[in-house]
Amino acid sequence: MPQPARSIQAAPGAIDPLPQPYLLFLGDIAEPAYAKTAFGLRDWAGERCVGEYACVGAKVSTGLRFMPPEQAFAEGARSMVIGVANPGGRIPPAWLPSLLQGLEAGLDLIGGMHARLEAIDSLRRVADRLGRRLIDVRHPPPGIPVAHGRKRSGMRLLTVGTDCAVGKKYTALALVREWRGLGVDADFRATGQTGILIAGQGIPLDAVVADFAAGAAEMLSPDAGADHWDVIEGQGSLFHPAYAGVSLALLHGSQPDVVVVCHEVGRDIVLGHPGYPLPGIEDTVELTLRLGRRTNPQIRCAGVSLNTAKLDAAQAERLIAAESERLGCPVADPMRGGEAFRRLAQACLR
Amino acid sequence: MPQPARSIQAAPGAIDPLPQPYLLFLGDIAEPAYAKTAFGLRDWAGERCVGEYACVGAKVSTGLRFMPPEQAFAEGARSMVIGVANPGGRIPPAWLPSLLQGLEAGLDLIGGMHARLEAIDSLRRVADRLGRRLIDVRHPPPGIPVAHGRKRSGMRLLTVGTDCAVGKKYTALALVREWRGLGVDADFRATGQTGILIAGQGIPLDAVVADFAAGAAEMLSPDAGADHWDVIEGQGSLFHPAYAGVSLALLHGSQPDVVVVCHEVGRDIVLGHPGYPLPGIEDTVELTLRLGRRTNPQIRCAGVSLNTAKLDAAQAERLIAAESERLGCPVADPMRGGEAFRRLAQACLR
Repeated sequence: MPQPARSIQAAPGAIDPLPQPYLLFLGDIAEPAYAKTAFGLRDWAGERCVGEYACVGAKVSTGLRFMPPEQAFAEGARSMVIGVANPGGRIPPAWLPSLLQGLEAGLDLIGGMHARLEAIDSLRRVADRLGRRLIDVRHPPPGIPVAHGRKRSGMRLLTVGTDCAVGKKYTALALVREWRGLGVDADFRATGQTGILIAGQGIPLDAVVADFAAGAAEMLSPDAGADHWDVIEGQGSLFHPAYAGVSLALLHGSQPDVVVVCHEVGRDIVLGHPGYPLPGIEDTVELTLRLGRRTNPQIRCAGVSLNTAKLDAAQAERLIAAESERLGCPVADPMRGGEAFRRLAQACLR
Repeated sequence: MPQPARSIQAAPGAIDPLPQPYLLFLGDIAEPAYAKTAFGLRDWAGERCVGEYACVGAKVSTGLRFMPPEQAFAEGARSMVIGVANPGGRIPPAWLPSLLQGLEAGLDLIGGMHARLEAIDSLRRVADRLGRRLIDVRHPPPGIPVAHGRKRSGMRLLTVGTDCAVGKKYTALALVREWRGLGVDADFRATGQTGILIAGQGIPLDAVVADFAAGAAEMLSPDAGADHWDVIEGQGSLFHPAYAGVSLALLHGSQPDVVVVCHEVGRDIVLGHPGYPLPGIEDTVELTLRLGRRTNPQIRCAGVSLNTAKLDAAQAERLIAAESERLGCPVADPMRGGEAFRRLAQACLR
């Protein structure tokens, strides 16, 4: 018989890890664009994904082994992650039998959609009866303090952006993967829902009450060994008319030693804010260093991460070389990797 | 018989006004320092305070007429405001009979302490039975949107600071009082608890979820007539290691045409953050204008508000003149008023 999942209690002021490994749940969707979370988990946390499960008739697959929750539990899974979003962020009734099956099989449920798992009566009742947890990664942990501003031990890198959705999370993940390959002791520190699922822990920074946002960033990357690197997922942009405050709190609380500026080629207007031209890369570097110096006078920019998804390989290579020449620093697209990215990753460690 | 207070329903996206006039409640405190809220209401919203009430044996008075809740209701009061804080932010059992008396007399209860009124069983039961409201001004209104960043009609002034607790609220209140005396159409827009009680409405900006903080500032000062001024209470400081994000969100969302920089004479370290020297006034002006230009390219600094409470009158006058000369702009202490303050108030309108 499956035992109730052991409740993992973190120390006060620490961040609860998510129960892992995962079984990825794909619902009944037919459109791969809605499964971005599942694909992200496959790509960046594949070693902690036992397999995938879906409703009858689902048309999207991550390519992981398909297995029912009972088998996943037997193979070590401890939670089922809702890895898809449907338009509107709701949980359709058609998913409920599969979710209940997961609970019965011994798995906790993890979601990050607009609809709260706790708000669905049947899930809550069964979870209560079985001692399972319904975990919503959109909710910050309790006990986040006001930032103290004191320097912490260890090294920190923060990815910052010219806008939202330019590649800050992927840049951070790619740097950690590259560094670990070199034997560097590094952790990815997640500040958004998908990142939290990938890391298995983190704080959804945009959901923290404003007065505690810098404190959350401090809590996210605590004191560590002198050679340890925290690679922190950036949020928003210092130039964003709605989210700049979040970005500044994250910058101040992270106290990064190194920043990497992320930009998407061809983006020249802030996403969803037609009146706002995107800042230049140089402006972003300059303002980030100026404001970041307040909590870490040693802050420096190691280079630029360019999202070249809209270019072909030859165009991307030419642009990356030209931008590196123009800006006088390493420039790379982490999704393309190669020598340019290795140089960027090295420059961060210098 | 007193009728249940009429529930005031604001339009969606609008801010609920508090039920007024007030009866100020002073509890059983013996130390005037704990009655700052009550004194602030007397000084800045005296025309909307019917009187004061307290437990037997209280030793602090605002000087307003003492009256029981029944008389206050008869004279027009619609709420009883807890105008004192005791150490720890709790509501002592000794206050409960007076608070229940207020509810029975027809008054809603308004609090802003750490302890929630709703969490006290006897208050909640009586309020439910009588149809009274228990209002906590620490809680933001529902439905705050993400900031849109579009320019709004009307004029806006924001007080900004070199630190917390330097006089941003009082400066804003004093400007509105001065301007109204000149016939200027102006509203004080509150972003903190005491300010909200004084204005009778507002948003506790520090309690808003980070992603919505700039949106809250937009909601706080909506489109208005071309000659109308919103005078917005600033929060924190752009140089504050814990609260700079809140300050930036407020700056971006307020889109101020004019800022007044507030500073306390003699403060040279950020309050509670010993490792952080205070920024200079010039640095604060420069960074505020630079960041503020993102949402209002017309932003300008009209002058400086100097908190000279620690100086005597002659010292203060000399320093104000010297600082005005040094900075090349109007400088005044709003608490001292006089010609210097009239010049500052005029310079904002230019």
